[in-house]
Amino acid sequence: MKIALKDIAEKIGAAIEGDDALEVSGLASLSEAKEGDLSFLSRAKYSKEAEVTKATAIIAGGDWDGSAPCAVLRVADPDKAFMMAAQAFAPEGPVRPAGVDPSSTVDPSARVDPSAHIGPLCVIEAGAVVGKGCVLVAGCFVGAGSSIGEDSFLHANVSVRERVTIGARAILHCGAVIGSDGFGYYKEGEKWSKIPQIGTVELGDDVEIGANAAIDRARFGRTVIEDGVKIDNLVQVAHNVCVGANSAMAAQVGIAGSTVIGRNVQLGGQAGVSGHVKVGDHSVIGAQAGVTKDIPEKIFVSGFPAVPHRENMKMQANMLRVPKLKQKVAELEKKIEALEKDMEGSRE
Amino acid sequence: MKIALKDIAEKIGAAIEGDDALEVSGLASLSEAKEGDLSFLSRAKYSKEAEVTKATAIIAGGDWDGSAPCAVLRVADPDKAFMMAAQAFAPEGPVRPAGVDPSSTVDPSARVDPSAHIGPLCVIEAGAVVGKGCVLVAGCFVGAGSSIGEDSFLHANVSVRERVTIGARAILHCGAVIGSDGFGYYKEGEKWSKIPQIGTVELGDDVEIGANAAIDRARFGRTVIEDGVKIDNLVQVAHNVCVGANSAMAAQVGIAGSTVIGRNVQLGGQAGVSGHVKVGDHSVIGAQAGVTKDIPEKIFVSGFPAVPHRENMKMQANMLRVPKLKQKVAELEKKIEALEKDMEGSRE
Amino acid sequence: MKIALKDIAEKIGAAIEGDDALEVSGLASLSEAKEGDLSFLSRAKYSKEAEVTKATAIIAGGDWDGSAPCAVLRVADPDKAFMMAAQAFAPEGPVRPAGVDPSSTVDPSARVDPSAHIGPLCVIEAGAVVGKGCVLVAGCFVGAGSSIGEDSFLHANVSVRERVTIGARAILHCGAVIGSDGFGYYKEGEKWSKIPQIGTVELGDDVEIGANAAIDRARFGRTVIEDGVKIDNLVQVAHNVCVGANSAMAAQVGIAGSTVIGRNVQLGGQAGVSGHVKVGDHSVIGAQAGVTKDIPEKIFVSGFPAVPHRENMKMQANMLRVPKLKQKVAELEKKIEALEKDMEGSRE
Repeated sequence: MKIALKDIAEKIGAAIEGDDALEVSGLASLSEAKEGDLSFLSRAKYSKEAEVTKATAIIAGGDWDGSAPCAVLRVADPDKAFMMAAQAFAPEGPVRPAGVDPSSTVDPSARVDPSAHIGPLCVIEAGAVVGKGCVLVAGCFVGAGSSIGEDSFLHANVSVRERVTIGARAILHCGAVIGSDGFGYYKEGEKWSKIPQIGTVELGDDVEIGANAAIDRARFGRTVIEDGVKIDNLVQVAHNVCVGANSAMAAQVGIAGSTVIGRNVQLGGQAGVSGHVKVGDHSVIGAQAGVTKDIPEKIFVSGFPAVPHRENMKMQANMLRVPKLKQKVAELEKKIEALEKDMEGSRE
Repeated sequence: MKIALKDIAEKIGAAIEGDDALEVSGLASLSEAKEGDLSFLSRAKYSKEAEVTKATAIIAGGDWDGSAPCAVLRVADPDKAFMMAAQAFAPEGPVRPAGVDPSSTVDPSARVDPSAHIGPLCVIEAGAVVGKGCVLVAGCFVGAGSSIGEDSFLHANVSVRERVTIGARAILHCGAVIGSDGFGYYKEGEKWSKIPQIGTVELGDDVEIGANAAIDRARFGRTVIEDGVKIDNLVQVAHNVCVGANSAMAAQVGIAGSTVIGRNVQLGGQAGVSGHVKVGDHSVIGAQAGVTKDIPEKIFVSGFPAVPHRENMKMQANMLRVPKLKQKVAELEKKIEALEKDMEGSRE
Repeated sequence: MKIALKDIAEKIGAAIEGDDALEVSGLASLSEAKEGDLSFLSRAKYSKEAEVTKATAIIAGGDWDGSAPCAVLRVADPDKAFMMAAQAFAPEGPVRPAGVDPSSTVDPSARVDPSAHIGPLCVIEAGAVVGKGCVLVAGCFVGAGSSIGEDSFLHANVSVRERVTIGARAILHCGAVIGSDGFGYYKEGEKWSKIPQIGTVELGDDVEIGANAAIDRARFGRTVIEDGVKIDNLVQVAHNVCVGANSAMAAQVGIAGSTVIGRNVQLGGQAGVSGHVKVGDHSVIGAQAGVTKDIPEKIFVSGFPAVPHRENMKMQANMLRVPKLKQKVAELEKKIEALEKDMEGSRE
């Protein structure tokens, strides 16, 4: 598949610097690109790679002042432009026609929209609802009474437990588990008694859940993932958590029970948030940070326990200052000794 | 479903403060509750929410001295009382009758108790044993020669590898993997040669394993999870680990190979324990802590490397003291300079 | 199964110290071994356990100078010797004959080598290729256009997404996901727009991927796992990462997008590496470390942010020195006060 550079420029709203009769046939990173590829300069850091790229053309921001041995598609926002260009190149996936694969098991009381595609070896239990245009690729489980909103896409081997509600246009990646029991026990003597986890999970619209991530159902009431939330692979969201709209969690983040994450919050990879705390809207939690208490709005915290990032940087600088401080104190000690001797001497 | 408050009070051993003719029809948190709900005050921290709750009744401990605009079910232990109340409200799950779904594949040499429910699309290999009253919901794999004790419950898409032993009343959540190979290699030059992981895993009775958790089989011998151990989602237990009875691990904990976790140990979320160490009975390991050496009994450790929590708190306080210390040293320096000058002066 | 000690000694190239007419019938750790078992001293740390082991024989290195109440198989390299002995004891797994189980769904356009074993309830989509001698145990998904090299082994419930390339002799453990979408979005106002992840994943030869691990496909181009890489359970490898040959990652490691891990790198459990950084060949990253910038070759880093391990140790020592420093400064303060008074006095 060859696409004229002019067509891409038009699609992404770019000005072409260079030969506008060129064609490109693939996407590649600056260093991997070969003739015929379109590439992309996301960060000034990669300027050197742009200088020697074999790409036929690159997309770059208006503020980039480097040079490249190829055509440049100049745009206001290279991230967005690249996203749009990528869509043009996206390879056709397998066709997934409407209907239920005969190897799947669908309870007679389940309601699967006729436009939905239920691939092989899926299980849809009693009373479950699968909306218009949904795709369940293969090996997916949808528990009794759960509902999946229209145009949602479940990759292979997803498990949705009973009585879970999933909004429209969800994307659930392979191995994701929605509605597992919360981790709740009551201690009797030395033994743990299980507290029934009788609540559920509600996913809003446009939610994406990563591969092998787990979203626990509420002890009672609901675990809530609001509209537009994006959750990466291997993330844990515990029972009764509420995640506000458009928040994003990188891989391996863990949120403990009953915590409230605000809207538009971003959590870096492997960060953790304790139970029963609140994280304010638009805050950012650094990678591997451990949040142990409430966090206000619009703040960047890092470290363990997490503190405002600037404080954390200062604390780390402090640690580095100790040896010099120690040395200085030793010097002062000697000077004082000398002064004490002098004082003795002056008295004698 | 409406339940008389009197009946709940009787069931959980509570004294009713307020109108004992009331009925409740659901459970909800203090802030989410609406008329007709029963709620629950687990921590004094939520007192303010209790004051304005819309719930019809709340369960509270004898020592809580706040007030609520509704009936109060006063109990000695609100956690336990709530657990008992929740059981009354637990919605009926799907009926899972005895028998093997025809879409499942059961080896003729496997022994599945006639009272067990094998749901759709399960695989039970040669020589495996599934005990009385077990439920395998759907898509579960039980490898050759493994055995699952009576009344165990395997949620969808659980994988139990070969020759694994699981006790009675186990609960394995979606995507859990029991008996994966330990991570063991021998280095020859630059390449890794795999050390066969020929051991197995033994889970005691009343063990619960979270969604997408992984328990590795032993290199040889056994990885052991003793009776009553509760393991949350996405936890990693490596080969040859032994976890003592009634210990509990929050989500995303990782235990490296050959480590021995005592009885009644608690590990906070994302904590890690190095290989070949021993953690004493009744100890508590804080969230995100990294245990690198043996830990005695009945101690609370935190941080990386994990030290007694009090020491860790002191170290963090020390870091905060450095700037003041630095300032003081600068002051002393000036004073000493002044003294030195004075001394010069007094000599002249 | 009994094996003559002489035969094992010959197999592993050991000199027997003790009765060479003995037979052994199993493998066990020093402390768990009973009569008839062969055991293994991997670390001098276990010398005391060797002294009282019930084993019939142990494998030990030439440099071990302890004693054991049983025969000793003396070898140059006990790790390697044990690996070879373990192979002799490995129990026979279930026979997995060539052919496709009738409960599996294989697209007519897929090419499955006749020597491959496709167990029950697998799905192989259009155009996929499964090589000579491969085993797919059960419940595995191989997406459209993906290919799996010869003699690869997929345990139960593995998901391989579309257009992924897997080399020869791969071992993919239960629940592993290869080719999930990278976590890439473009922000429009408060909402996230998905950047199509149109790239793929390439696994070299002899790669092992742990249970419930996730390897994301590239945004465009390829996520690359080179030959001989070993990845433990629950590891996250993000889009466009390249992992060099023979590198090894312990459980729960996370590598963020576009990062380049060199060859023969080792990452300890729960370590994390930020996006867009390079880790040099033969470097070692400590458990729970957080790498935030480029790391040179052949270095051992630890802590967060990760620094050379020696520096990290110093920083931790520094924190412990602060209280003493504080005390010393207080003492100096007093001495200076005294000197100042003396000086006053000497002037009067």
